[in-house]
Amino acid sequence: MTDFAATKALFHIPGNVIYLDGNSLGPMPKAAIERSRQTIEDQWGEMLIRGWNDANWMDLPGRVGSRIARLIGAPAGSVVMGDTLSIKVYQALASALELNPGRKVVLSDNGNFPTDLYMAQGLIDSLKQGHVLKTVHPEDVEATLSDEIAVLMLTQVDYRTGRMHDMAAITRKAHDLGIVVIWDLAHSAGAVPVDLAGCNAEFAVGCTYKYFNGGPGAPAFIYVRPDLADQVRPALSGWMGHQAPFAFDPDYRPAPGIERMRVGTPPVIQLAILDSALDAWDGVDMADIRQKSIVLCEQFIAGVEATCPMLELVSPRNAECRGSQVSFRFEEGYAVMQALIAHGVIGDFRAPDVIRFGFTPLYLDEQDVAAGIEILADIMKNRLWDAAEYKKRQAVT
Amino acid sequence: MTDFAATKALFHIPGNVIYLDGNSLGPMPKAAIERSRQTIEDQWGEMLIRGWNDANWMDLPGRVGSRIARLIGAPAGSVVMGDTLSIKVYQALASALELNPGRKVVLSDNGNFPTDLYMAQGLIDSLKQGHVLKTVHPEDVEATLSDEIAVLMLTQVDYRTGRMHDMAAITRKAHDLGIVVIWDLAHSAGAVPVDLAGCNAEFAVGCTYKYFNGGPGAPAFIYVRPDLADQVRPALSGWMGHQAPFAFDPDYRPAPGIERMRVGTPPVIQLAILDSALDAWDGVDMADIRQKSIVLCEQFIAGVEATCPMLELVSPRNAECRGSQVSFRFEEGYAVMQALIAHGVIGDFRAPDVIRFGFTPLYLDEQDVAAGIEILADIMKNRLWDAAEYKKRQAVT
Repeated sequence: MTDFAATKALFHIPGNVIYLDGNSLGPMPKAAIERSRQTIEDQWGEMLIRGWNDANWMDLPGRVGSRIARLIGAPAGSVVMGDTLSIKVYQALASALELNPGRKVVLSDNGNFPTDLYMAQGLIDSLKQGHVLKTVHPEDVEATLSDEIAVLMLTQVDYRTGRMHDMAAITRKAHDLGIVVIWDLAHSAGAVPVDLAGCNAEFAVGCTYKYFNGGPGAPAFIYVRPDLADQVRPALSGWMGHQAPFAFDPDYRPAPGIERMRVGTPPVIQLAILDSALDAWDGVDMADIRQKSIVLCEQFIAGVEATCPMLELVSPRNAECRGSQVSFRFEEGYAVMQALIAHGVIGDFRAPDVIRFGFTPLYLDEQDVAAGIEILADIMKNRLWDAAEYKKRQAVT
Repeated sequence: MTDFAATKALFHIPGNVIYLDGNSLGPMPKAAIERSRQTIEDQWGEMLIRGWNDANWMDLPGRVGSRIARLIGAPAGSVVMGDTLSIKVYQALASALELNPGRKVVLSDNGNFPTDLYMAQGLIDSLKQGHVLKTVHPEDVEATLSDEIAVLMLTQVDYRTGRMHDMAAITRKAHDLGIVVIWDLAHSAGAVPVDLAGCNAEFAVGCTYKYFNGGPGAPAFIYVRPDLADQVRPALSGWMGHQAPFAFDPDYRPAPGIERMRVGTPPVIQLAILDSALDAWDGVDMADIRQKSIVLCEQFIAGVEATCPMLELVSPRNAECRGSQVSFRFEEGYAVMQALIAHGVIGDFRAPDVIRFGFTPLYLDEQDVAAGIEILADIMKNRLWDAAEYKKRQAVT
C-alpha cells in the first residue's frame, strides 16, 4: 500500500494554500532544490562540457523516459523525453500518417486540447497531401470510426470536464478498422492507471509538468509501440535521433528503437529536475493513486453539491468515466476562481464558465479537500465572488 | 570600451582549467545559481501556477529574444525563444519553402552542422512535393546560386574549421536570384558581430548554450524579418503561437509577428537561467568582442605554430574569414585532446582528426591563451598524447 503521508512530505506546498491545480502545474518536490543546484553548480559549473559524459547528461532522455514508462504501462526503453507536448504530437502524427498512406482522415474530438488540433492543422497544411482533420463530439468518436480514417488522435482525459475515454475499447475498435491510434496522456499520466502495452496503441505522448511535477516547461514524452519503433520515420529527424550523432554523418540514419524520436540537444537542467520529481513515484502503485483519487473527487463532489447549489457539475458523475479532476460550471466562474485564489484555494478557470479542480493523492488528503470545500461554500454562500459584495464585506471586517 | 576583466569575474571557471570550449558549452555564469534558485524556490515553489502571470513566465520567450536580438543586429521584437535549434531549423525551412512555392531546391553546404541537413531531409521526405536538398563545398556556394533554388540554408561559421561565410554578400546575391535565405548563427551569435537587419535575410536561427552561456540544453532562438513576420505560416503551429492561447479556440489563428513562432509551453527554468547569463552582455559591444577574439585567436595560432609543427591549421589564416575558433588537424587528434583535457586545457575533438578551440573574450584573456599554448606544446613535444609514452612518463613522475 502506497504511503501517502510519506509522499506528501516530499512536496513543498506554501502555507495557507490548498493546491487543487496540480493538473495544470504540479508543485515543487523538495528534492528539486538540491538536484537543480547539483546539476548547475557541481555538473555544469565544474564539469563543463564533460558533463555530457561524466554526469550522463546524454542518456537522461532515455533514462527518465523509462521511469515514466513504468507509470503508463509501457516497457522500459519504449519512452523518450524531449521538446514539448506540441512537438511530440506533431512527431507522432507525422509518423502515424506514414503508417497509413492510403487514407486521408485524421479523427479527433472537440474536447481535445487545442494545441493538438493546431499541430495537426499545421502538419496537414504543410503536407498538402489531401489530409483532413475531422473532429466530432467525444461521445460520437466510436460511432465515427471507419475504414476511411488514417489516424485517431485523442486526449484520454478531457482538460475541461475530466471525461475519460475508454482507451482499450476505442483502440480495439480502431484497430479492427485499420486505424493507427495516438493517445495524448497529458491528463492521464500520473493521474490514472494507463495500460499502454495492453491497449496496443501505436503512439502515446504526454507532458510532465502536471501530475509528474517536473516544473514549469518540463519536457514532454513520446512512446512508440516497440514493434514499430525500428520502422517509423521521424519527420523531425535531428542529430540526437541519429544512429551515431558524433560521427557527423551528412546523411540521416535513424537510431534503433525509441531513441530515433529524440531531436535536438536535451534540456538537461529541466530533465534533471524532472528526474528528481520522479523519485516521489518510487514505490507508488498507480492502483493506489486511482483509488485515493476517486475518494478525494467523490468527497469534493458531495461536499460542493451539498453546500453550493449554484454550481453545476460538468464532470462525469460516474468515477469510472472521470480522470482525476472535477469541474463545475457557473456563469461567474472566473470571479469565483479569483475569490478562491484570494482565499488560498488554487484551482483554475477554463473559458467560458468552467472552474476546474485537480486531485493529486501524492500530496493532497481528505483534510485538504474538506478545507477547500468549506472555503468554496463560504464564497458561494456569501457571494464573495461578487465584486460589490466582496468590497462591502472587506469594508466591514 | 567593454571591461573584460569585469565580465570575466561574472563566470565560474574551475581551478586549473583553461576553458577553450565555450563554442560547445559556455561555462556557468555565477548569476545562474541565484536565478535558478529564485525561479525554482521563490517562483515555482511559492507562486505555483500563478508564476505564469506573477513572475511573467509567459513573456520570457519574447523578452529574452529581444535581448538576443540586440546582439545579432536585429530589432527588438523580431526574435523569440523556444525548443531546440533543430526544431527552429525545421520551422524556418518549412516557412521559407512556402515563400517560394514554385522552386524545389534547398541549397546548403557540406560544412553545415549535420542536424541542419537531417532536419531538412526529414521535412523534404515528409512533404513529398519533389523538393531536393543539394549540398556543395562551402567555397562553391556563391557560384551554385541560381533561380532554381528555393531556399539557401547555411551556417555562417563552420563548426569544424571556423571558416566564416560573408553573410551580406551571399544574401545579396541570393536575393538577386529570388532565393529565400536562412542563416544558422549557432557559431556566430555572441562570437562575431552579426548584422541581420542590414543583410536582410528572411530567417535566422541559433542556439544559446555556446557563446551565450545559457547552460546545457538552453533553448534556441528564431528570427523572422519583420516585414514577413505577419505573413509566414508556422508549420509547427502550437498553442503558444496562437493569437489567443487561452481562448481555447478550436482553430489555429497565428499570433501577430514573431510570437507565432512559439510552439508549446516554454522551458521556464532554462529560460530564466539564460536570461541571467545574458546579464553578462549588458554594456558589451560586439565590436570589442570581435577585436579581442581576433587578438586571442592570432595569439593562439602563432603560439601553436611556433611550438607544435605537427599540427596543421585548418581554420582560415585570414581573421576576416574566421569565426571565434581555431582548429588544427592531426592524425592522433583524439588522443591529443584527451591528453589536453587531462592537463586542464579543455577544447574538443571533431571526427575524423580535428581538434578545436573556442575563444571567448567574455571570460578568456591573453594569460589563459598563453598557458594553453604552453601545455599543448608540452604535450606535443613530449608525445604525451601517445598512450605508451604517457604511461612511461606517469611512472617516472
